Amino acid sequence: MPGVVYERAAVLGCGLIGSSLLRAMRARGVARTLAAADPSEAVRARLQALALADAVSADPLEAAGDADLVILAAPSMAIVEDAPAVAAAMKPGATLTDVGSVKGAVADAFAALPPSLHAVPGHPIAGTERSGPDAGFAELFDGRWTILTPLERPGDDAYALAVARLSAFWRALGSTVELMDARHHDLVLAVTSHLPHLIAYNIVGTAADLEQVQRAEVMKFSAGGFRDFTRIAASDPVMWRDVFLLNREAVLEVLGRFTEDLQALSRAIRWGEGDKLHDLFSRTREIRRGIVAAGQESPEPNFGRDRGKA
Amino acid sequence: MPGVVYERAAVLGCGLIGSSLLRAMRARGVARTLAAADPSEAVRARLQALALADAVSADPLEAAGDADLVILAAPSMAIVEDAPAVAAAMKPGATLTDVGSVKGAVADAFAALPPSLHAVPGHPIAGTERSGPDAGFAELFDGRWTILTPLERPGDDAYALAVARLSAFWRALGSTVELMDARHHDLVLAVTSHLPHLIAYNIVGTAADLEQVQRAEVMKFSAGGFRDFTRIAASDPVMWRDVFLLNREAVLEVLGRFTEDLQALSRAIRWGEGDKLHDLFSRTREIRRGIVAAGQESPEPNFGRDRGKA
Repeated sequence: MPGVVYERAAVLGCGLIGSSLLRAMRARGVARTLAAADPSEAVRARLQALALADAVSADPLEAAGDADLVILAAPSMAIVEDAPAVAAAMKPGATLTDVGSVKGAVADAFAALPPSLHAVPGHPIAGTERSGPDAGFAELFDGRWTILTPLERPGDDAYALAVARLSAFWRALGSTVELMDARHHDLVLAVTSHLPHLIAYNIVGTAADLEQVQRAEVMKFSAGGFRDFTRIAASDPVMWRDVFLLNREAVLEVLGRFTEDLQALSRAIRWGEGDKLHDLFSRTREIRRGIVAAGQESPEPNFGRDRGKA
Repeated sequence: MPGVVYERAAVLGCGLIGSSLLRAMRARGVARTLAAADPSEAVRARLQALALADAVSADPLEAAGDADLVILAAPSMAIVEDAPAVAAAMKPGATLTDVGSVKGAVADAFAALPPSLHAVPGHPIAGTERSGPDAGFAELFDGRWTILTPLERPGDDAYALAVARLSAFWRALGSTVELMDARHHDLVLAVTSHLPHLIAYNIVGTAADLEQVQRAEVMKFSAGGFRDFTRIAASDPVMWRDVFLLNREAVLEVLGRFTEDLQALSRAIRWGEGDKLHDLFSRTREIRRGIVAAGQESPEPNFGRDRGKA
């Protein structure tokens, strides 16, 4: 066991990620006392029933007040908006971080906070399509990457120490930590997460709206590939709205590339250019092999969803 | 056990689907004798080693010669090209079917065959991203849909009987059978299978080609959504080349709708129209619920790939 990294930790916003953090911190014993805050009465009732924290509050400032680590775990827009008030309620020398999917906007907000506080933007690359405190589990971050995008604080040794401690915290939850520039993070994640979600939401919407094909047919015959896309298209709508509003430029940039490539592919189909299609379809296999080799994907066919069958 | 439906069955082409058919037929006892043919020496060696058929041949006409049911299980272009010679080698009154993902082109090819033979295009909506005889398993078709698109044979009672018998065959393998017009099949599958594969191949290609983001970063941080797309983008390149060449019109039609919707979504992001994004992201959740309720998807989060963890 890694032992206590922070005396008192507070999680503000307790959905899938926040409640998984509470469970993981308790399971690994990385914080002695856990405070939780959520604006929803229903969520607070579940936190109490599941006994996920030592103190549950409606007021984020109360929870943040005497914490050594405060984790903002709401959708990204709320993280950016809440940061100043939360920071003002925190004690000097404490660490503020977040788990939002966009880092540039959070880094800008954190850079404006008093330097007596150590504000370090963060993003665990982990999740499921489920939402809410009942969807969380302690092992969510295990074997996944967590990216931290520290602020520019040249010569500030206390800040560097706070980053190192936060890295130790995530490693204690099973994550591998990578430090990265916030803008580069937003470009990388635009490719590996934001564009995939946008495409998935879009294709599910297109299929639902087709006049010539009934919805019942789309559902019945979805095992041909479509069903895969519906998983991430079932993700939290508020979280994803915020991602696209806050990472607009990077998303539009990679979307432009995707559309350009898709038009070339469309043209190859129209003109019957089988070799071009075969070339693309052959080289995309390599990427999956790399992902499986990197331990980021199940090696089983069909994601292992047929495990009971095969 | 359903009992014998055909005395002697022949499978021509023994990759994922063909070898699964051999396994399923033997496991369920639906054919007394199994013949298999494949042009690849390596595949034939595996069929022998796995003892998947009573007779293994390099010559499809030899295997088809005295079969009561012949199943063409090669990629779609080969199905269309091989059908006339295979039909000429078959005995009168026997049934010819296929498992290709495109049905209009196969229906056209089958309609030109001698009517002494009962030719019924078919398509089991089942598969994995793996290829080859070692990837098959007997339960592949269990709980999935199989679509048959019978030819127009008004007043031909023997043909109607052959369709009924082939339906019983698929039900014996665990499938639910649906009869459909071949052109409608191609439009429905363009939505539920062909467009999803095209999009997946395209996004994996786009990600691999970006200059600003390294391939290693794409792989490491793929758990944010991208890895889902790599599964179907790892499917058989020849099979999928043939699908796009043979179902060009329906694919280009639904691709046009997809692109139109994507442009509207892109515009909403550019202009910060959060409500439009939230509306789409909310209604796509329903479709997945319907697919899970229809028994076509795992109800577990993350396709159950984290089963060991949660």
